[in-house]
Amino acid sequence: MMRLAVAAAAAVLAGSGVQAQELSEDARAHARSLADVALESDLAYRLTESLTTEIGPRLAGTPQEARARDWAVEMFTELGFENVRVEYFPMDLWTRGHSIFEEVAITHPYPQELYATSLGGAAATPEGGLEAEIVFFDSFDDLLEFDGAEDALEGKLVFVNDRMTATRTGEGYGWANRKRTQGWVQAENRGAAGLLIRSVGTSSHRFAHTGMMSFPAQRLPDIPALAVSAPDADQIERIHASGETMRVALRTYAGWRGEVASGNVIAEITGAGAPEEIVIIGAHLDSWDTGTGALDDGAGVGIVTAAARLIMEAGVRPRRTIRVVLFGAEEVGLVGARAYASARQEDGTLDQHIIGSESDFGARKVWRLSSGVGEHAVGFFDAMQEEMEFLGIERGGNSSGGGPDMIPLAAMGVPMARLDQDGTDYFEFHHTPNDTFDKIVPEELAQNVAAWAMFTWFLADTDVDFRARPETEAEDAAEGEPAR
Amino acid sequence: MMRLAVAAAAAVLAGSGVQAQELSEDARAHARSLADVALESDLAYRLTESLTTEIGPRLAGTPQEARARDWAVEMFTELGFENVRVEYFPMDLWTRGHSIFEEVAITHPYPQELYATSLGGAAATPEGGLEAEIVFFDSFDDLLEFDGAEDALEGKLVFVNDRMTATRTGEGYGWANRKRTQGWVQAENRGAAGLLIRSVGTSSHRFAHTGMMSFPAQRLPDIPALAVSAPDADQIERIHASGETMRVALRTYAGWRGEVASGNVIAEITGAGAPEEIVIIGAHLDSWDTGTGALDDGAGVGIVTAAARLIMEAGVRPRRTIRVVLFGAEEVGLVGARAYASARQEDGTLDQHIIGSESDFGARKVWRLSSGVGEHAVGFFDAMQEEMEFLGIERGGNSSGGGPDMIPLAAMGVPMARLDQDGTDYFEFHHTPNDTFDKIVPEELAQNVAAWAMFTWFLADTDVDFRARPETEAEDAAEGEPAR
Ligand SMILES: [Zn+2]
Ligand SMILES: [Zn+2]
Ligand SMILES: [Zn+2]
Ligand SMILES: [Zn+2]
Repeated sequence: MMRLAVAAAAAVLAGSGVQAQELSEDARAHARSLADVALESDLAYRLTESLTTEIGPRLAGTPQEARARDWAVEMFTELGFENVRVEYFPMDLWTRGHSIFEEVAITHPYPQELYATSLGGAAATPEGGLEAEIVFFDSFDDLLEFDGAEDALEGKLVFVNDRMTATRTGEGYGWANRKRTQGWVQAENRGAAGLLIRSVGTSSHRFAHTGMMSFPAQRLPDIPALAVSAPDADQIERIHASGETMRVALRTYAGWRGEVASGNVIAEITGAGAPEEIVIIGAHLDSWDTGTGALDDGAGVGIVTAAARLIMEAGVRPRRTIRVVLFGAEEVGLVGARAYASARQEDGTLDQHIIGSESDFGARKVWRLSSGVGEHAVGFFDAMQEEMEFLGIERGGNSSGGGPDMIPLAAMGVPMARLDQDGTDYFEFHHTPNDTFDKIVPEELAQNVAAWAMFTWFLADTDVDFRARPETEAEDAAEGEPAR
Repeated sequence: MMRLAVAAAAAVLAGSGVQAQELSEDARAHARSLADVALESDLAYRLTESLTTEIGPRLAGTPQEARARDWAVEMFTELGFENVRVEYFPMDLWTRGHSIFEEVAITHPYPQELYATSLGGAAATPEGGLEAEIVFFDSFDDLLEFDGAEDALEGKLVFVNDRMTATRTGEGYGWANRKRTQGWVQAENRGAAGLLIRSVGTSSHRFAHTGMMSFPAQRLPDIPALAVSAPDADQIERIHASGETMRVALRTYAGWRGEVASGNVIAEITGAGAPEEIVIIGAHLDSWDTGTGALDDGAGVGIVTAAARLIMEAGVRPRRTIRVVLFGAEEVGLVGARAYASARQEDGTLDQHIIGSESDFGARKVWRLSSGVGEHAVGFFDAMQEEMEFLGIERGGNSSGGGPDMIPLAAMGVPMARLDQDGTDYFEFHHTPNDTFDKIVPEELAQNVAAWAMFTWFLADTDVDFRARPETEAEDAAEGEPAR
């Protein structure tokens, strides 16, 4: 209560006139009853089960992703959503081209197969494969700062060994991911034959974590780039420590396959009072090819869809329109999210987007409500958190983004909020074959839906504007790019 | 102490004349100092690291297993063991013939790849693969009792879904393993095109548990037989529950490759007083092909070798000879163990084997001392356990075997004992790619060595005979076949 009072006072000071009691008695009672229903509902669980069972892996741009769109359209329609549609966009297809278990082996000094997987965007080896000496870097910083001879990496395989630490917020991911996203440029610029990295993620299991690389200035790699599972990276580390020269052979088939179509699937509950005002909640439909995308992001699909559906079922239309967007091609560079934001610029509806949020961090419980809204609206979020506290949800700061697929909208000035999930073990499974439906705990998923139903209801049934007011405040920078 | 007194009284009643104080003050002090050194030693850890790093997977009969023998001979020699030698024996080689990730996919109703691996001894699919309908059995018992039409399984893929439960003793393994060892016979006798089973083991990770099938009357299968990872078995179960007909396609390359050589590596510490009396301690050198055999049984190799070496280092030769045997070809049917026992029958030294034990249940702490000895010697074990209690070791019963490779010797009347390890999570890793060195906790491994050093010392420095005395007692049956 004290915290709320302080926040309300701050809001008053900022001249917004927003009061602590901005959540009406009615809105609070309705939100609470939505949560009660959500906690007893298995809808999100069944949706996630259906998507992962009936479609499974759905790599962006593939026929599997297209089947997922068909699934989503049918599902939204059956659940009674309005304005169900697909917005298509073009994208460049990358595929592994072969088994997800690629042929990688230490050949010297101790021949042994390694469990490794190509990073998204990597090139194939030359036909017939390649074999080269490993140059070992203990960290990505060591590679960045490498001042060896001009030709020291020429024809070699660069190995980068950074280890990621598990945290609730997943904050170690960005740092650990630099080798994955940027390592290839460093290696290729020095003439390396390829890049190997210790798998990003915190798992000690023998699956390597895949994920997209970055392509500065549209440049694409000519070299293979692979993640090696943690136990296999240990093996490389041990051999390196022994002082032996080490050689690795690999044969991979990855590559870019040309332009294809992907799409965003959109569905709505039309607002009763101000239907042109849009609260956008999202998740992404595509997944990596190795798991079945249950945690990333089947759970998010289930959560936001179920939350909206429960609001619909409760029989009271919110003031604003709730728009659910299941984005395509998130994993390969937010392609769907960028297409969505561009289309809104073109059709002139960007300003109608009142606030946005995405569920894309697994299926563990929500533990925090964060916002990225105008200072005058912080009190509204404080009041929301008070209502959600019985779900175990704390109040986070006001410099949050809304999730990966919200980044383009946030960059165009759309306010954001986020229900932060516990990510302590997210990177045990993320982007590996272990991302499967059995990892989801039904009660935890239901808690997410309860939080999302309350959150979405509060945002959609108010007339509070969440945009920053540039004349009275400086805009906060959003936090770093979230996990994808 | 009370327990010891009771046991001693029983021994007296049995007319053996064994006393509670059969462990001399000297033996107890020496054993305790061995344990103190062992708890500070990383020798077992380093040996296991060396075997898994320098050799890695070492499937029975392959060049990798031969390299492991070379490794063992060199290692024993460097450590100062005596009579280091290899005893070769012939065996039939079976290999997977291809990647350890086999090509298995649901084709109908929801196309999706499955993570599966051939069971040891299985045949390949026809060239080009096969596709067939799944007939789902919830348990192996259901398959045994199946009374469907004569041709109900003809050309079908039999799927068996038994789930294993994790226990400290691993006692659920034998039951869960019936589908693995015997399932193919049931399927093939009914004309099935192949067998798929839910992976034995308790892991929820996406690796299937391999292991040898059984071959009654030397019969070998003509059909493929594979384990499917737990999340993929869930997928099959969900589709089955939906009532849909399900089809699976597979292409595998497994098969028998003809006769090759394997071998047991033997090393000794010659006894000072009765060198012809042998205390045999063992582990197995071969492993499955998918992991690096760290828990199964690199840890055992490290434990028994380090225990013997620490006894040697302490500078007091025991009365009896300590013989360390690293068996070959355990995983494929105790081939090395049978060869060893047969050779001892032939060379007439079987009766010189006073007692035997093997370490082959991972790397977690020893929690129990079990025996399979004459009733007159139970008190000796009770006294040993009292000495080992500070390591957290309880006393088990007297109907224990000595471990998988001790089965042939036990069957020929050699007394047995066992230091039971905590197996609660053993089947998370066992016979999967996840059986790697990083799963071993150094302190837990050192506790094993401490227990083994005391145990081996007590058994080797006494003149107690452990054989049952048939004239005064009925021989106990050994417990069921342990994990392999
Ligand atoms: Zn992702
Ligand atoms: Zn994601
Ligand atoms: Zn085994
Ligand atoms: Zn074993």
